[in-house]
Amino acid sequence: MIDNKKLAMALRSFAAERDWDQFHTPKNLATSISVEAAELLELFQWSRGQKGWDEIADASLRAKVQDELADILLYIIRFADKADIDLEAAAERKIAANAQKYPTDKFRGTDRKYDE
Amino acid sequence: MIDNKKLAMALRSFAAERDWDQFHTPKNLATSISVEAAELLELFQWSRGQKGWDEIADASLRAKVQDELADILLYIIRFADKADIDLEAAAERKIAANAQKYPTDKFRGTDRKYDE
Amino acid sequence: MIDNKKLAMALRSFAAERDWDQFHTPKNLATSISVEAAELLELFQWSRGQKGWDEIADASLRAKVQDELADILLYIIRFADKADIDLEAAAERKIAANAQKYPTDKFRGTDRKYDE
Amino acid sequence: MIDNKKLAMALRSFAAERDWDQFHTPKNLATSISVEAAELLELFQWSRGQKGWDEIADASLRAKVQDELADILLYIIRFADKADIDLEAAAERKIAANAQKYPTDKFRGTDRKYDE
Repeated sequence: MIDNKKLAMALRSFAAERDWDQFHTPKNLATSISVEAAELLELFQWSRGQKGWDEIADASLRAKVQDELADILLYIIRFADKADIDLEAAAERKIAANAQKYPTDKFRGTDRKYDE
Repeated sequence: MIDNKKLAMALRSFAAERDWDQFHTPKNLATSISVEAAELLELFQWSRGQKGWDEIADASLRAKVQDELADILLYIIRFADKADIDLEAAAERKIAANAQKYPTDKFRGTDRKYDE
Repeated sequence: MIDNKKLAMALRSFAAERDWDQFHTPKNLATSISVEAAELLELFQWSRGQKGWDEIADASLRAKVQDELADILLYIIRFADKADIDLEAAAERKIAANAQKYPTDKFRGTDRKYDE
Repeated sequence: MIDNKKLAMALRSFAAERDWDQFHTPKNLATSISVEAAELLELFQWSRGQKGWDEIADASLRAKVQDELADILLYIIRFADKADIDLEAAAERKIAANAQKYPTDKFRGTDRKYDE
């Protein structure tokens, strides 16, 4: 369980204590999510497709991955809190929509949907 | 509450039914998070700083924002599930680390930390 | 004038001398362009729309901006060289296409095209 | 040769005719570069490292790649023009700096520099 309400409250206090709410515009938070996402991506910048999930076991890489995933999660929780959006409901709607969009019989084993 | 276990299970089934697990490498999921983050950012591409949170009330923009936030959330849940990472614990560690890194008396009301 | 042929040759030698050509797949170079673009964006992460072009005169920010723009330029030149794409011709086609897509009488002074 | 002066002039006229200069702040152009970079990256989102340069020969993919590279080039030319930055000089300085940073004897055949 991710207690996003509790995390959102912690982020509110964090911003209030530093008077940073003024910087938390939709554009700035969207920018921050992109910047953190790129930091996660950078960890895999030059891998030639050979990197599997076992490599995340490496303690140093794992710590960085955790850090970047946490940054992204916190910024989307902050964005959703400011915009009064229910993240879990949005995620459930999206899963249902994707099941419709990609019927199993047409998309099994192909990445066709993606690159075309 | 975000039931990330349940969402992770739904994503596992979704991938298994389509034989898409093979595409879900660390690099590809990190790529996907960046791509979705850019789609969120694109919604605010040309705003001149004047866009506030009240504008997210616009139904069309709001639907797109929800959609992109959901995509990002689902991909980080999928990444964390594959990597066996506890997202909530990582987020709580991060908040604690940030509190240390940005003491309120030194960073109040300034974006100095960011752009320097 | 940007002598992209000369820069492409320099990048070829650079990669050959380090045996890095193997890492320069389409996906890895596309990843690198995104990572560098995010580093440029990070320089403006928290600005509230108030930052104008005069601020780029600041020597420290200016040096970072130059650095990131150079990284992006070098990676797109490298990508175009590997893919045998004529960057200038592509840019001229794009300008012509945009002139068609955004007739002046319909798009003057509005960012409507963008955010809708 | 990329005639960046000529392209910059074309972009100036393009913006002036539409009164779009007001939207071309440093942050908005940096955002645009990131958004276009992600659109390029999306073309390779799910490839499993197996995609080589020969696949860019595919006419449909090739057209999209050219389009995205052109978008990125035009936005960095526009950014450099607004900021009065000499792109070629910046690129040459960067190549020289990289040669110092990655001596051939220490970095041959390894992606160590990158992921560590």
